[in-house]
This record gives sequence, structure tokens and C-alpha cells, in this order.
Amino acid sequence: MNFGIVIFPPKDVQDAANSYRKRFDPHYSLIQPHLTIRESESWDPPTLANAVERLSDVAAKLPPVEVKLNRFSTFYPVSNVVYMALENPKPLERLHEAVCDGPLAVRERKYSFTPHLTVAQGVGGDEMHDIYSSLRPIPLAFSFVVDRLHLLYQTDNGAWTAHQTFLLQG
Amino acid sequence: MNFGIVIFPPKDVQDAANSYRKRFDPHYSLIQPHLTIRESESWDPPTLANAVERLSDVAAKLPPVEVKLNRFSTFYPVSNVVYMALENPKPLERLHEAVCDGPLAVRERKYSFTPHLTVAQGVGGDEMHDIYSSLRPIPLAFSFVVDRLHLLYQTDNGAWTAHQTFLLQG
Repeated sequence: MNFGIVIFPPKDVQDAANSYRKRFDPHYSLIQPHLTIRESESWDPPTLANAVERLSDVAAKLPPVEVKLNRFSTFYPVSNVVYMALENPKPLERLHEAVCDGPLAVRERKYSFTPHLTVAQGVGGDEMHDIYSSLRPIPLAFSFVVDRLHLLYQTDNGAWTAHQTFLLQG
Repeated sequence: MNFGIVIFPPKDVQDAANSYRKRFDPHYSLIQPHLTIRESESWDPPTLANAVERLSDVAAKLPPVEVKLNRFSTFYPVSNVVYMALENPKPLERLHEAVCDGPLAVRERKYSFTPHLTVAQGVGGDEMHDIYSSLRPIPLAFSFVVDRLHLLYQTDNGAWTAHQTFLLQG
């Protein structure tokens, strides 16, 4: 079963992101707008049990993290993704490093970790450039505190279900 | 903001339910298959805080609950809904009563609480009868243990996001 760890931003950020995702992101109906902390990976039940224990321990010690989304950016040419970018990615990078260690260490890393909230993906290069050109001038100023992580799993239709929440209580 | 409390059944039940929901349930892309424990209600932040405190306290004392879905049923003529029904609804009725008390008491009750997993809704009477006739002969035997509740909130597009999980630890 595929498991992933994400942050859901507050409702106002989700509503804004969904207004773009509805048109530009084929994952729109599979999961709500999110910042991925650990990419999807197939886990057997013992791995899940270890992961839950690890997440409980780590979250209990980690303090909440302030996030400010201040612009649209793109991963082009690495991938045709447009996303809401963080003014300062460092705190979420540290959160990612703290979470993705021990039994949650990432073995096969496809990309370096860059916290982001995807609003467009799975589109061709020309379309991506059009989308990015139209979004880039839009001012973005969402500030919020991340005080929890969500462990999700995927059903056969590609959609994601909540397994457990971990509150950052450090 | 609208909040609701649900149980997500295991992945195999979700996959089976989604195979019907995809065709017969307009909520298919808004939320994964679930059993509602408390209907959606608009809460302000203090109400949410009270609800979270209440849920934490109640869940810590409640034991996990065994559920067996053993047939398809319908709420017709009260509503045009087809659902997976419980062999014995009593344990989830008791869970509902324990959760929906104090600050979570249900003030305006539309229907008596009947635990169910909806697979078809929002269809006309004739179509509902066709769906029910086609599903009714299908044998159903899903047994699982419910060991957590999920508090969800709704974004403007009607989709639901996980707010917090509460483990039944009694």
C-alpha cells in the first residue's frame, strides 16, 4: 500500500490553490492541496507500524513551523510543474530532514527536497509556460503555521485517504 | 467552516465502494468512502477547539469497534441512497452516542442515526431502484475493526480535508 506524508495548508490557501488546480492539475480530485513532506512509497504493515512510531516520536519533539507562500514558481526544465513557493524553505527543509530519517529515511531520492504547493502538473511544456506566465504576476501572500503532519494512503483509483495526524508539539 | 466526523473503512472496502461510487455517487471525487459518525456542521474556532478536546477525551476511553458490512440496503423512500449496511449497527450507534454528546451534541437531527457506507446518492427514484436491484444480489462480507475517527473540514469546492485523527484507545 502506498503511503505519503503531507501538510495541508489552511482552508483559504486550499481554496486559492484549488481555483488553479481545477484547471491545471489532474490530481485535483485525488487529494486536497498539500505540501509533500515525504513522497509516496509502498509500505508493508511492519513498515507502517515503524513509521507511525517514528512519526509520533518526532512530531512530539518538533515545534510548529511558520510558512509564507510568496510567489508562483516552476520546476521547469526538471519537471513541468508550477507551484506556490516559500519565501524561506529552510524550516520545512529541516522538518523534512527530521521526519525522513531512521525508518523513514528516503532510499531512492528522485529530486532534492524543495517544499512546494503544486497548482499545475501533467501538462505539456508550452501549456506549462502559458500557465506560469499567467500566474507569475499574481501577488501571493499566505502566511500560516504548520502544526501537524498527515500520513495518507492511496486507494486503487489514485485518491488518498487520511490514516493518522501527528501534531507538532515540541 | 464545515466540520464532520467520519470513519474510513480499510482500503479493500474503499476500493470496492469506489467501484460503485464512481458511477453512482456525485461525492466520489470529494471524499473517500466513509461511514459518517457526525454530520457536517459549521463551527467557529472556539467550537472547533471544544470539539477537538471532547473528541480527544472520548476517543481515549472508547474501545475499538468491530464492523461487518454484510449487504446492500437503501434509505428509500426517506432518501434515494443505496449503501453498504452493517450486520449489527449497535456498536457504531453506541460510538455515535458517545461522540455526539456535550459540545458535540446534535441539535437539529434530520434523520435517526443509522451507520452506513453510501455507494449511490443524488439519483432519481427510478435510477436508484435500478442501482439497488443490481447491487442487492451481490454478496458482501467485509469485516474490520474501527480503531480511529477522523475530523474533516470542507473546502469551497465541496471536498474534504483531514484536520485530525483520534485513536480509539479504551
